[in-house]
Amino acid sequence: MTMKLYGFWRSLATYRVRVALALKGVEAHEVSVNLLKGMQHGDDYKAVNPQCVVPSLLIDDGPPLVQSMTILEYLEETHPQPPLLPRDPRGRARVRGLALIVACEGHPLIVPRIRTYLEGEMRLDEPARNRWLQHWTRKALEALETHLAHERETGRFCHGDAPTFADICLAGQVFAAGYFNVETTAMPTVMRIFDECMKIDAFDRAQPLKQPDAPKSLTH
Amino acid sequence: MTMKLYGFWRSLATYRVRVALALKGVEAHEVSVNLLKGMQHGDDYKAVNPQCVVPSLLIDDGPPLVQSMTILEYLEETHPQPPLLPRDPRGRARVRGLALIVACEGHPLIVPRIRTYLEGEMRLDEPARNRWLQHWTRKALEALETHLAHERETGRFCHGDAPTFADICLAGQVFAAGYFNVETTAMPTVMRIFDECMKIDAFDRAQPLKQPDAPKSLTH
Repeated sequence: MTMKLYGFWRSLATYRVRVALALKGVEAHEVSVNLLKGMQHGDDYKAVNPQCVVPSLLIDDGPPLVQSMTILEYLEETHPQPPLLPRDPRGRARVRGLALIVACEGHPLIVPRIRTYLEGEMRLDEPARNRWLQHWTRKALEALETHLAHERETGRFCHGDAPTFADICLAGQVFAAGYFNVETTAMPTVMRIFDECMKIDAFDRAQPLKQPDAPKSLTH
Repeated sequence: MTMKLYGFWRSLATYRVRVALALKGVEAHEVSVNLLKGMQHGDDYKAVNPQCVVPSLLIDDGPPLVQSMTILEYLEETHPQPPLLPRDPRGRARVRGLALIVACEGHPLIVPRIRTYLEGEMRLDEPARNRWLQHWTRKALEALETHLAHERETGRFCHGDAPTFADICLAGQVFAAGYFNVETTAMPTVMRIFDECMKIDAFDRAQPLKQPDAPKSLTH
């Protein structure tokens, strides 16, 4: 089985897949689709993913899998070790709920096509666009913080003492806070867990600025 | 086991859970949280869901489950019949991918908190707000159409001949098109599948305007 991951260094949805692959020890060749240059709208990539978003995971020559959380569920089903979801349905629901606070609510509001629409169609100036990006990035982090600080299942990681889908999404959302200069001091539980995540090689090596397609001007 | 679903007649994320419960024959008492009156921000509901969004599913007195797609996965794990995901991992990934095109990309852009921000913070007039709502509703439907019209797994429903998560999300997104007057003639496959869905009692009875909390002025 060969896997090809279409992604981009800066894409936080790609980050999720990169971490999950690394945690599970699955090799995938990553193909860079430069979102900042609009390469996702080229005919080559449109044939892979008609929605023109990353990531897509191509396995052998089967139809590509789309949507990062879908790819995580697929990897969990096909490569169960180490598990990235707890075993009990209530625990799994808690982890997926935390993950989707990021994936279904925070992240969709800050992706390139939204930024393009705010600028091109709505003609918002940069401060107004930044307020939008900061507001929604912060809201998702605050929601995570409220859950994590008050729920007894929170441990070293979001759910007990091993990383799950929730930690993968949390880590990506903290990178979003970095992209848009969102203050994170009011989110001590989130940041404590982020620090735990980054001690793990799979989370660390997957981070945006450590990717080969990241601009050298940012990485040095 | 008693289940309490906090939702709202107009909420399309609540619609998804309502359909899944009905398809699986699971009884849940629905509590209406009037999103148009801002009741989700009241202290009562904040104690249930600190993010102030619907739906939440309360099972006995355990902590509430949040995020509609999480609740669907939970119901699938705990009430496997009839299945709303195929059995093979690739098929499951296709269905979840289609579902998340709606749940992670289309729907998050049209929910009440976004509309409130566009009006209150961004001071956009109604035509500009409607352009936003129509644009993103249409984009998600077009993405579904492209997948469904070209992929061989499409059958009577999104994936073969029985309804899945994908159909539940598709049906909700078609209601969104109704809310915001989005033209659907260019999406024949989506609309054909929507019509199939609405022949099923669980999809039909769950629809927004058939809920007891829907305003009488709209239902008569």
